[in-house]
Amino acid sequence: MTDRLAAQFAFLNEADRLKSVLRATTLCDGSRPENSGEHSWHLALYAMVLADQAGTGVNIDRVIRMLLIHDLVEIDVGDVPIHSKGGTAHASTETQAAEQAAAARIFGLLPPDQAAAFRALWDEFEAAETPDAVFAKSLDRVQPVMANLASGGGTWITYNVTAEQLESRVGAKIARGAPRLWEWVKAQTARFFG
Amino acid sequence: MTDRLAAQFAFLNEADRLKSVLRATTLCDGSRPENSGEHSWHLALYAMVLADQAGTGVNIDRVIRMLLIHDLVEIDVGDVPIHSKGGTAHASTETQAAEQAAAARIFGLLPPDQAAAFRALWDEFEAAETPDAVFAKSLDRVQPVMANLASGGGTWITYNVTAEQLESRVGAKIARGAPRLWEWVKAQTARFFG
Repeated sequence: MTDRLAAQFAFLNEADRLKSVLRATTLCDGSRPENSGEHSWHLALYAMVLADQAGTGVNIDRVIRMLLIHDLVEIDVGDVPIHSKGGTAHASTETQAAEQAAAARIFGLLPPDQAAAFRALWDEFEAAETPDAVFAKSLDRVQPVMANLASGGGTWITYNVTAEQLESRVGAKIARGAPRLWEWVKAQTARFFG
Repeated sequence: MTDRLAAQFAFLNEADRLKSVLRATTLCDGSRPENSGEHSWHLALYAMVLADQAGTGVNIDRVIRMLLIHDLVEIDVGDVPIHSKGGTAHASTETQAAEQAAAARIFGLLPPDQAAAFRALWDEFEAAETPDAVFAKSLDRVQPVMANLASGGGTWITYNVTAEQLESRVGAKIARGAPRLWEWVKAQTARFFG
């Protein structure tokens, strides 16, 4: 029990570092960049609230768990903004290898049974094939759109994003897991991309 | 549908403000105060990882949902540090009334069915009577202890906390929902209080 708790708290203390990983997106009030810890919280809340946008076969509690751990590899690798050069290209072999190493290191802090379960959940998110992962990925794309709308353009201005780029990089991925949601959100973006 | 999504996003955008509510506790590295949004994420992760410390009858997915929303009233009321004068006294009638008003306003942004469900979950957390709420409260008390241990004393130094105060304000509440967890954590605090 003592060894198990020591391993669990080694992981939980390491996870604390995600609060210091900064994203390109700001808070809704534009006051500062969002960090990946609070982003993960907000996304889990998105899953709770937008559950009725999920397709059949989606287990929202699994989606929430997936979103809580989806960004932990950024402790080692950092965040790659969607609209940045690194975000729009296919992830390089180097980036993919770095993320795999980060997952092995960070989830490997947990007791073996939990290390395997958390890693499997993160692998499922990354693969974006199951209904739960597809919906989780949709939410991960929606939340920065709402932050940009609230803050007056945000990363769309930073990276000179066009309507076509928004559709291909963001809209298509939201629509895959939550088509009605993208329809509504896209209408909100008309004042920027009209 | 459009009205429903508008209400859901009014709530999710308002929730963003929790990222700007600062707590007395710092990050584990002591670099800055923790905010209540990232704190809520960390607690939900605590629930995932420490699930085997929960008593019988605890539903971890309900605990996670509870922890995701437990601090939202702080958007209006702010955080009251456990070891501060306001935290150690019984919550004043004024504070309780302010929290009730905040819950009505913030959860009231949601569509009526979700407003009622979220409010009921928050009321359950506050009442601290059900197994889920008791375990959630235990985790809410454990996480700042781990941050203080990591950062070199933290709020124990700020507020000159004694071993007896730690036991009554923190330990007793952790032990109520997770007795073995408090036994282990208490042993870690011996270098500060031993």
